[in-house]
Formats: sequence, structure tokens, C-alpha cells
Amino acid sequence: MPTIDPNRVLADLTHLRTFGAYKTGVHRPTFSDEDIAARAWFANRMREAGLDTTIDGIGNILGKNSAKGRKILSGSHLESQNHAGWLDGALGCVYALEAARAIAADDGMKDAGVDVVVLCDEEGHFGNFLGSRSFTGLLKEEDLDHARDRTNGVPLRDALKKAGYAGRPRLQVERDRYAGFFEAHIEQGDTLESKNLRIGVVTAIVAIWQYKITVTGEQNHAGTTSMTRRRDAGLALVRLLNMIDKKFPEVAGPRSVWTTGRITLDPGGPSIVPGRAEALFQLRDADPKVLERMHETLLALVAEANSERLPIEIRRTAASTPAVMDETLLKALDASAEQHAPGAHLRMPSGAGHDTQYFAPLMPAAMMFVPSIGGISHHWSENTKDDDIVLGAQVFADGIARALKG
Amino acid sequence: MPTIDPNRVLADLTHLRTFGAYKTGVHRPTFSDEDIAARAWFANRMREAGLDTTIDGIGNILGKNSAKGRKILSGSHLESQNHAGWLDGALGCVYALEAARAIAADDGMKDAGVDVVVLCDEEGHFGNFLGSRSFTGLLKEEDLDHARDRTNGVPLRDALKKAGYAGRPRLQVERDRYAGFFEAHIEQGDTLESKNLRIGVVTAIVAIWQYKITVTGEQNHAGTTSMTRRRDAGLALVRLLNMIDKKFPEVAGPRSVWTTGRITLDPGGPSIVPGRAEALFQLRDADPKVLERMHETLLALVAEANSERLPIEIRRTAASTPAVMDETLLKALDASAEQHAPGAHLRMPSGAGHDTQYFAPLMPAAMMFVPSIGGISHHWSENTKDDDIVLGAQVFADGIARALKG
Repeated sequence: MPTIDPNRVLADLTHLRTFGAYKTGVHRPTFSDEDIAARAWFANRMREAGLDTTIDGIGNILGKNSAKGRKILSGSHLESQNHAGWLDGALGCVYALEAARAIAADDGMKDAGVDVVVLCDEEGHFGNFLGSRSFTGLLKEEDLDHARDRTNGVPLRDALKKAGYAGRPRLQVERDRYAGFFEAHIEQGDTLESKNLRIGVVTAIVAIWQYKITVTGEQNHAGTTSMTRRRDAGLALVRLLNMIDKKFPEVAGPRSVWTTGRITLDPGGPSIVPGRAEALFQLRDADPKVLERMHETLLALVAEANSERLPIEIRRTAASTPAVMDETLLKALDASAEQHAPGAHLRMPSGAGHDTQYFAPLMPAAMMFVPSIGGISHHWSENTKDDDIVLGAQVFADGIARALKG
Repeated sequence: MPTIDPNRVLADLTHLRTFGAYKTGVHRPTFSDEDIAARAWFANRMREAGLDTTIDGIGNILGKNSAKGRKILSGSHLESQNHAGWLDGALGCVYALEAARAIAADDGMKDAGVDVVVLCDEEGHFGNFLGSRSFTGLLKEEDLDHARDRTNGVPLRDALKKAGYAGRPRLQVERDRYAGFFEAHIEQGDTLESKNLRIGVVTAIVAIWQYKITVTGEQNHAGTTSMTRRRDAGLALVRLLNMIDKKFPEVAGPRSVWTTGRITLDPGGPSIVPGRAEALFQLRDADPKVLERMHETLLALVAEANSERLPIEIRRTAASTPAVMDETLLKALDASAEQHAPGAHLRMPSGAGHDTQYFAPLMPAAMMFVPSIGGISHHWSENTKDDDIVLGAQVFADGIARALKG
């Protein structure tokens, strides 16, 4: 069994925290100076671990193991959301590197090894899962021409040039090289913490179905237009959202979530009856049958609310499929978790998207969670107990080792 | 009885329409080149009518009648909302001028006269009712220093300088000079049209009570935060607005209106549970008792929805009092309407604010409406039938004449 070095894990994470330190978290957007420096430092740590390491034309880092025999690919991302936490992404990169180091140092595992990959821009500063899409062959050259930093508008091409990555080839995953893909991540919810558990073994990454709901009414003077004459688009939307709120608990699954993230009334003046109202609505579940049931219910509620006076349109703007994890790899993680944290682990879906979802269609894939204190993420106060960080690194390395043994 | 000149009324309105013509309406924001030209032209028309006319330091125009005896003050505004209609404001200015002309030409009325006033910026490009507030002594010099054009940010002081008005004194209303104030306006609603009526005699200008409702929740990841753990500020707001929608018809008066003009969910991302939600909510009624009842109901609904998990705050940001019209002047308008349009007139409140509300506390005041086609206003398609425009001018002039006779 590989044995991880707790101090090395914590020291690497603590050092990463210095790149773009913000309060107790980090502000390290993709291709910021701090992000570029973090990539350079981490690539060197990978080289020090004996990995043949390259930073490619999109900023992905691949560290190849020279060991013969079975190989596992593992990694996550290094950049952060704006003014966010120190562990989201970084934890999965350091765990992957530690697994590579611990397995390389394990005399019983000379014929197997771990490649480490750092995928750029999972957080979507320039586009959704830019690095994973590039590495798995889904990102076209012309996609790079149009992408811009969502915060400051800098073109991706300029950012890549400034980082020194422009002109390099973009690496593509050698899918036949690997027995599987592993990623570790903080949970970002409070399921583990609230149940006093220490390890989550992820069964699937939920699908996200995104909708735009638009009501068309008639813009009017809020003083001179009587209540009966109004065609108030905002009010029609409020009534529909209220019906969704009432009806959805009956058709949703136990872990389904649905969210209205934005409501826009047009023109938005205090004295104007809104002529147009729009909502961004989202469903998430790991079970396609549950998703389909919620989708049908949503369409039925819209159809019921729709009228000639206040026509309502709904458009599904995005629909991913759930990424199901590989049962054999999950069993390896279960067994490792049971050895190091007996009875303190749980199988659970991931409500958030992760780089792993791009690898699951190509090879067996698995994910592991450690607890998030208070369930907080995407905020500088995001944190995980040191004990949980160390335990997670051990369970993860041992789980990969079990998978490598087959 | 004064007799108006239908062609002169229509010609004046048609000429005003050329200043900032936009489709079939006008785009004539306060102190735009087109607005300044319209003011200069209209001041000349007032001089041609024998009025001693001044444009003052805020752009108000006052035309004083040299007739001895009782005097009525009448007027409205000349600027328009952005890309709006040709009659909103302009109609009341031309009616006032025509009343002054017709009464001056009436041999039976040598001992009375009409002063005409054009009040600037009723539409609030630089501030609410700027001209009326200046003329009635409510606008301080320092208020002028801070005001800016809401569309392009130009400081009011610069706009006044460019118009050539800067440095002139700001005229103040001589309240003892007048037996009353009259304003005509398009209805901006469809009450008259839908009842096949031609004249509205305004009983009161409604009060507007404006609120800001704020829900504080917890911003969270829309994938990893379970429905039970969420503190979704947006959802709490939707539930409250739905309760208001259900409860208000029970406590409102027959002409009450209530409007949610804006909803803001913060931060507004598709994948983020809103941590803060805000609504702009407004009540209007002419009856203080009805307003008070709606206000109490609103506070009770907020108190009921308020919780420790999702605190809701409500703040009343503005509360005007209804401006009640003078019964004697209304009777003069009733009688004139009954003579020229027997059975085709109605007493009604005004749901919109008007310059008249600034004069009602100072002297007897009255307002008269003509029908709006389709109830449309603040839009370039705003219109009134020529027949209604001509009839309205006659009813208005005769109503003022009756009031002058006392």
C-alpha cells in the first residue's frame, strides 16, 4: 500500500495558497499572473516527482510517468473563481501528485504509475471546461479565436501569448494509455459534514438542464393602466414560478435541485408595468428518468400558464447527460475508504460539474469527495479540516493503487 | 362664451410635433436642441397672443395677461419622454394658450384673463417635476448643482448654460394673482375610450407610495446545495409577491393599482442560489384610507413571510399625498362638458402624476382629460382623435371662462 506524506500534502497546498492570496482564500483567475506562476511552480513540483512534464498550448499541464505497465490518469484544475477558496481544484491537483509520488515510492508497485494532469479553466473564465475540452479533442482552434475573459474582456489568444503558451501544440489524451481517470475534490455541499462522514465516493456527476422562460406582456404606465387592463409580464412570471415551487417537490427525486438564478423585468422602472419578463431556470439530477419527469412537469406548468394575453415561451438552452462513474473504480475507492475511515464514507452523486465528466465517456472514471466546512465553496472562507485533507489524500492514493492492481 | 379656433389648435400641435419628430411621436428630452427650439417657438406664440412672456432661469415660460380682474393660471409641459408621444404635455400647453386667446377675444370677458405657464421637465429627465418645484418655491439652488440628465449624464447647470437660460432669475408663482390653476392632459389610460366618453373631469391626482423589499438569504452553489439546506432569497421573494397578488384584490379600492416594476436577484448567475433579492413595489390610490389599508396589508404579509432563515425588510422610499381638485372649478368643467358633450363626460381620478399636484396646495386647482386611443402613452404611437382634441379645447376654454366668471 502506498503511504502518503501528510506534511508534503499540506505544504504543497499551503504554498499554492500564496499565489493570489485573498483573505483566507485565493483570487487566481485563469491566466492571471498568479495563475501562470502557480502553473509554473506546480509543473516543477511534478518534474521533481520524476514526471515528464509539459505545459501545452492552452495551459494544460501533463506529467507522464515512466513506469511500465498499467497507468491511471489523475488531476483537477489550479485556477480559482474570482475571490474564492484555496482548495477548489488545487486539492485534486495535489492529491493526484501525491498519489503519483506515493505509488512511485511503493516497492510493491514498480510496474504501474500515475500520470498527473492539470486542466486549465475548469472555472470557465474564458469558457466552460476549456482545458478538459481541449485535452479530450472537443475544442476547435476557432473556438480559441472568440473566447474572452468574462471579467475583463481580454481575448484568450492575448492571454495565452502573455502567458508564453501561444504557439505550443495542444496535448490530446492518449485514451489507450490509461486504466482509468481519478479526480478528488471538496464536496462543496454539507452532506458529509452533516452526517459526520469523511469520504464521499461519487457515483455520478449530475446533468444540468438549463432553461430560459420568457413572458411577453404589454409595457404600460403603472398609474394609468387599471389592474384589469394590464398585461403584466412580471406578475405572470411570479405566478408561474410559484406554481413550479408548489409542484416540483411532488415530481423531483430526493437529491434533485432546481434554481431560478435570475429574473429580469423589462424595462425595470418603478412606475412601468413590465412588458417582458425573463427567468433563468435550472434542473440538476443524476437520474435521467427524474430529469425527464421534472422537464415534462415544467413544460406542463408553462403550457397551463400560457395564454393569448400573456404568451409564455420556454427554451431549453443546455442539457447535459449525467456522467456515470465506473463501478470497479468506485469499489476500489470504497475499499480504501473502509480501510482508512471505517464506516465514515458514503456513496453520493456530485451536484456540481467537474473535469471528470469529460473523461467518463472515454475511459473508466471515478471521483472522491472530502468534507467542506459548512458546505461553503466559491467563497474565500471555503475550508476543510487538515485531518480530513490528510485522510483524503491517503484514501485517494490507496484507491488508485487498488485500481492499478486491477 | 369664448369660442376656440379648431384649426389654430391643431396647427399649433402639429407644429410642435416637428420639434424632435420621431415616427408619429416625438423625441424631445428636456433641454435637447429640439426642446429649446420648441420653447422659443412656443414663447413667441404666447407673445403673439398678447401675453407678456418670459423664459426664466430653469426654462419655465410664463406669459402674463394684461387684463384686469380675475385671472386663471393654466399650462403643462413641452418636453417629452424619450421616443414618446406628441400630445403628452404639449396638448395642455396649447389648450392653455388657446383658452387665453379665446377668452381675450371674447367681448363678454374683458375684465378677466388667462396666464399661461410652461413648466419644464415634468418628465423628470433631470429630476422630478423640476419646473413645478422651481415655480412653487420647492427647488433650492443647490438642488440644481447635483442634477444630471438621467440618459446622458450632462449636468443640469451645463444644459441651462447651453440653452441660454443660466443666470436668469427663476420665476416664482404669485399665488394671490390667481383664482385657480387648470391643466388639460391626455388620459393615458383607456377609461374614457372604453366607455365611449370624450371628457374626463379629474377629481384627484393619486398618491404614489413606493417601496423597496429586500430578502437576505445565503448565496450558494446551485448544484451542491440541497433544497432543504438552501436559503434562497429569490424564492422567498417570489412567494411573497404571490401572496401580495392573492391578498391585494380583497383590500384594494376599485381604482387602486399596485406594481412590481423591478426584481433583482443577486448575483444573478444561472448556477447560483440567490443570496439577495430585491423588488421595487408601488401603490397608487386617490383615497388615503385605501392607501393606508393596502400599506397595512403589505406590512402584514411581509411580517408573515419574514423568518430568521430568510429575513425580509421593507422600506417605504416615497409617499405622496393625493392632490384633491377644487369642487367649484370641477363644477365649471362639468357644466362646460355637459354643454359641449352632453352625457359624454365622467369624473375620475388621475392615476399619473401631473404638474397640477404642485399647484393644488397653493390655490384651487382642476384638471381635464381627453381620451387616449388604446390608452397608450409614453410611446411614439400615443394619439387622440382630432375631433376629441378640438372638443377638449372648447370644453377647457369654456370651463376656465365659467371659473373666471365665478
